[in-house]
Amino acid sequence: MKVNTIRFMNIKLFLTLAFLSWVGTCTGQQANVDQVTQREDVPPNFVVIFADDLGYGDLSSYGHPTIHTKNLDQMAVEGQKWTNFYVGSSVCTPSRAALMTGRLPIRNGMTSKVNRVLFPDSHKGLPQSEITLAEQLKKVDYVTACIGKWHLGHKEEYLPTSQGFDYYFGIPYSNDMDNIIPFRSTQGYIDFWKSEERKDINTFNVPLMRNTEIVERPADQNTLTKRYNEEAVQFIRKNKEKPFFLYLAHNLPHVPLFASKDFLGTSDRGLYGDVVEEIDHGVGQILAELKNSGLDKNTIVVFTSDNGPWLIMNQEGGSAGLLREGKGSTWEGGMREPCIFWGPGRIQPGLVTQIGTTMDLFTTFSKLANVPLPEDRQMDGNDLGPTLFEKKPSERKEVFYYRGDELYAVRLGAFKAHFITEGAYGPPMREEHDPPLLYNLEVDPSEKYNVAESNPDVIEQIKALVKIHNLNLVKGEDQLKDRG
Amino acid sequence: MKVNTIRFMNIKLFLTLAFLSWVGTCTGQQANVDQVTQREDVPPNFVVIFADDLGYGDLSSYGHPTIHTKNLDQMAVEGQKWTNFYVGSSVCTPSRAALMTGRLPIRNGMTSKVNRVLFPDSHKGLPQSEITLAEQLKKVDYVTACIGKWHLGHKEEYLPTSQGFDYYFGIPYSNDMDNIIPFRSTQGYIDFWKSEERKDINTFNVPLMRNTEIVERPADQNTLTKRYNEEAVQFIRKNKEKPFFLYLAHNLPHVPLFASKDFLGTSDRGLYGDVVEEIDHGVGQILAELKNSGLDKNTIVVFTSDNGPWLIMNQEGGSAGLLREGKGSTWEGGMREPCIFWGPGRIQPGLVTQIGTTMDLFTTFSKLANVPLPEDRQMDGNDLGPTLFEKKPSERKEVFYYRGDELYAVRLGAFKAHFITEGAYGPPMREEHDPPLLYNLEVDPSEKYNVAESNPDVIEQIKALVKIHNLNLVKGEDQLKDRG
Repeated sequence: MKVNTIRFMNIKLFLTLAFLSWVGTCTGQQANVDQVTQREDVPPNFVVIFADDLGYGDLSSYGHPTIHTKNLDQMAVEGQKWTNFYVGSSVCTPSRAALMTGRLPIRNGMTSKVNRVLFPDSHKGLPQSEITLAEQLKKVDYVTACIGKWHLGHKEEYLPTSQGFDYYFGIPYSNDMDNIIPFRSTQGYIDFWKSEERKDINTFNVPLMRNTEIVERPADQNTLTKRYNEEAVQFIRKNKEKPFFLYLAHNLPHVPLFASKDFLGTSDRGLYGDVVEEIDHGVGQILAELKNSGLDKNTIVVFTSDNGPWLIMNQEGGSAGLLREGKGSTWEGGMREPCIFWGPGRIQPGLVTQIGTTMDLFTTFSKLANVPLPEDRQMDGNDLGPTLFEKKPSERKEVFYYRGDELYAVRLGAFKAHFITEGAYGPPMREEHDPPLLYNLEVDPSEKYNVAESNPDVIEQIKALVKIHNLNLVKGEDQLKDRG
Repeated sequence: MKVNTIRFMNIKLFLTLAFLSWVGTCTGQQANVDQVTQREDVPPNFVVIFADDLGYGDLSSYGHPTIHTKNLDQMAVEGQKWTNFYVGSSVCTPSRAALMTGRLPIRNGMTSKVNRVLFPDSHKGLPQSEITLAEQLKKVDYVTACIGKWHLGHKEEYLPTSQGFDYYFGIPYSNDMDNIIPFRSTQGYIDFWKSEERKDINTFNVPLMRNTEIVERPADQNTLTKRYNEEAVQFIRKNKEKPFFLYLAHNLPHVPLFASKDFLGTSDRGLYGDVVEEIDHGVGQILAELKNSGLDKNTIVVFTSDNGPWLIMNQEGGSAGLLREGKGSTWEGGMREPCIFWGPGRIQPGLVTQIGTTMDLFTTFSKLANVPLPEDRQMDGNDLGPTLFEKKPSERKEVFYYRGDELYAVRLGAFKAHFITEGAYGPPMREEHDPPLLYNLEVDPSEKYNVAESNPDVIEQIKALVKIHNLNLVKGEDQLKDRG
């Protein structure tokens, strides 16, 4: 394992060297020495609020004109609003694996040539050999809860309670699964999402679980968000004395869309807006509970989503704002998400244009909780602490965009190279690019203007980075392929 | 003239009736009686900050990931951020005419079949018979200044000093005009905007004027924004004792892009970002001056832009965010703009999803300054006061999207019907639609899903509205056609 560590050092060295030439243009934020807040010695609580299929453009603070996310907007004013924040994959299962393990899903078998995610008839899940963020924080006695959607294996040995969580309440996979209507064709699938059946909770025979028991089936999806929010508040209320980690993973606004009666029909944006505004309401409840109980000064709250909007769902899918494409794609709309960090008195408020990823949460939280990082495996996180607490530049300069078990694109600093592009869903339309398509994401966030021709040096740097990445890569055994 | 007034009443009556069916879904914001702030009796100062070709998506508070408009974002937090705010045309001259007169440009001759805007060889301008917002406020002794781009006629009788402004400092038309390089073809024009010449201020022989005198030619465009900002602050500083109206109309981020050396190379977004952030810096200077001088409690500041981003300028043009198309087009990206109202203690902070337009400023400011509206002509404004001060629903339910002297599209409440669509620039690609294309802009702000088939009643309502509008319409004589 020493070898991996040494190779990992090489990547760092490479990145440092590669960046000497343009790092000046990448820093964006400068540390304000006067404003530096000392970190406290008491390990903080962590709350991760994770939406599902929410687009980059779906919050009012990220530019949506008719979805009014007033609590998230206020959270962004009081905290840090990140605009270059990424997830580990453009679809559900691998994205969640990345967040949970701080590692690219290619390393832990959560990618596959044949299935993009886990299904109700899948046999496996996130391997027990992986260390989840919950297991990591358990090493220093955090109380841990997973509320909401898991989607990293629904057999008992893969459930949250087997992966470091003291408590679990939620659905084990996506809310559109266990659909009682069989599809014989792509057209049948498309037609279904226009049918009245999609509005009936009985169409989706999804189980609702508490710990390892099914407590409701089909889950009453009308009230899931409301119940998740309430469970989250209860968990905080019960655990004021010990450090805690709360992972609140909403299964919405993934289709089918449902909202409780307090929110149904209340948003200008229609049902999709009702759903997002109910999630936003829960954010408000959680922040209020933290403030009321005095925990706000020692809690870090993060809000983001698992991947971009499911555009083929039309009005029932979200918006990636000015970003190109959505869920399922390695264009920015598939993997860049709204991300807000909140922690009054600790986190320096403001806009952050630095690069971060969900994998960095593992590293950042481990450091704050004083838990050493695992040394027996390749980790993919960076400590975001210097940016969060002192507004220093982020250490992260690179993003790897995998689709299944293939590397499609790589971002290094401002630039992103697409080696392969493909439509998000439907027929492949796969294209390989040599030289790769190259975009300057800072100047051209919508990936419209290919600048490969004028930047051969950047392409060489990115190719060298890929070479080191590949040398260092041990692919995990495919856990998604076994079904039925 | 009585006839016009009566007809105008009919429109109001029609709109009221048409809206009874769905007004409940359109209100969005409800008045909070406890929060109602009493308007003061002293007439307030007005500051209108107008950008040029800025897109809906070009501020960080409207979703741009790498343009950091920290002062505008703060202004939005302290004030009202409007997300359904429109200009009177998708190009410069008619849009400015609409703002200045509170009337659709079709009424005052600022539209044409042959020219979309005024050029350096144009003979005319906004007719003297029009009442500008400056002239309106002069009736009650406001001190008035126009700083920046005018573009409503550059001969002396059309300049700001002939249209109600005590003081003028700026350029009389667009900053890309008086180009010393002759274009013989469309291709030549496109090539020019990639050439080095575009970066040289001497390429554009644009005059800088103080009142009616040319004080610099070519204007040193590198420092124009900086000088406008300084002039604006000076104007406020000098006029603390009398109510004032300051119209600060930046000529950027319209191409060619220039920034002063304090901003050049400082934005992640490249030159376009430098330019926008310098405008933003001026907003900060102005708000600071108002606060420092104690005028903030009695001043209304509005920030918006004349039309959407000039997309054919590629990286040197802006972004309409999630809206479709840009400048020159009657899709939303052409005519919907960021708009922030600020007035601490008067304006109720928050997000406003109601509809407003630049033409409403004339009506709103007139009411606040206690100047009766002109009764001898058709006005197109609504009083935004109830929304600004009490968060009540806006009276405005309709938007007319003209291109030249033709009505292309109409919004009524959530719905927008396109009778004609056409590419923003280049060859016409004009298409007429019967039935019109119909979009629900609240649910589908990106105008992707035509819902004409399922909403024949809405189309009928919009057609009836158009009929009344046309009955009532007296087209002004084309002021743009005479050139050379």
